Amino acid sequence: MGLQFMEAKECHLPAIMRILTDDAVASKRDVYSEPLLPCYTEAFAKISQDKGNFLIVALEDDEVIGCLQLTLTQYLSRMGSIRATIDTVRMASGKRSKGYGTKMMQYAIALAKENGAQLVQLAADKKRPDALRFFEKLGFKNSHEGMKMQL
Amino acid sequence: MGLQFMEAKECHLPAIMRILTDDAVASKRDVYSEPLLPCYTEAFAKISQDKGNFLIVALEDDEVIGCLQLTLTQYLSRMGSIRATIDTVRMASGKRSKGYGTKMMQYAIALAKENGAQLVQLAADKKRPDALRFFEKLGFKNSHEGMKMQL
Repeated sequence: MGLQFMEAKECHLPAIMRILTDDAVASKRDVYSEPLLPCYTEAFAKISQDKGNFLIVALEDDEVIGCLQLTLTQYLSRMGSIRATIDTVRMASGKRSKGYGTKMMQYAIALAKENGAQLVQLAADKKRPDALRFFEKLGFKNSHEGMKMQL
Repeated sequence: MGLQFMEAKECHLPAIMRILTDDAVASKRDVYSEPLLPCYTEAFAKISQDKGNFLIVALEDDEVIGCLQLTLTQYLSRMGSIRATIDTVRMASGKRSKGYGTKMMQYAIALAKENGAQLVQLAADKKRPDALRFFEKLGFKNSHEGMKMQL
């Protein structure tokens, strides 16, 4: 089978949550349990229903090894352009440094382009220098400050 | 009447486009004309139809003096949270440094909160130091790199 990419199905959700919580930063704010907490199944249903919001999985021999989220947003600026935002890019800890993350990002960028996006953007945590270099290698320019506020 | 904020109506669109193009960076990539180019009226219709995408205007005595775009996105992470993104924040050139921009941002942040967002984020161009300071004063933390790629 090798490596495949697709929009996540509900059966992929437990594996996605295992990967999302297997991370020093994320494990402080998310919980993996069996069964999953309803907040995750409800969020998954909302993402699936939104035509501009794609949860993408990387599968190796049908096993989920990575994920990311791609969102398309209509703007007025740049001649009424659609912008793609990529977030929550994760690869299972045993599957890194094999080029799989690069292939998953290239899949997402191609999907954004197919859907009419003229620009793809993301915010990379300044505490994750490896991620910054990874995105720069893919061609992202570090032109903006990514600013956040908790509500 | 004083200062008011609301979701933009189609009759506000010409004034919004005048403000968006009255900017050294933006005037290179957008065009104001009468009537407006169809790409803008089409983009406006798509934004209006999307329940998670709000084009907000600031009105002074019924005249559009500022605008911003607020988008709500469902994520899995942070217990299935909704995140708000603010973009294309503009105030007409004669209306700056009067505190109107701060009030417009506070309106957008309150709207994000009402709609269930736990976090609000934006990308500020590193070539706009005044905008960076403006967002920092509002409480935004400069924790991420905002990375972009043209497609």
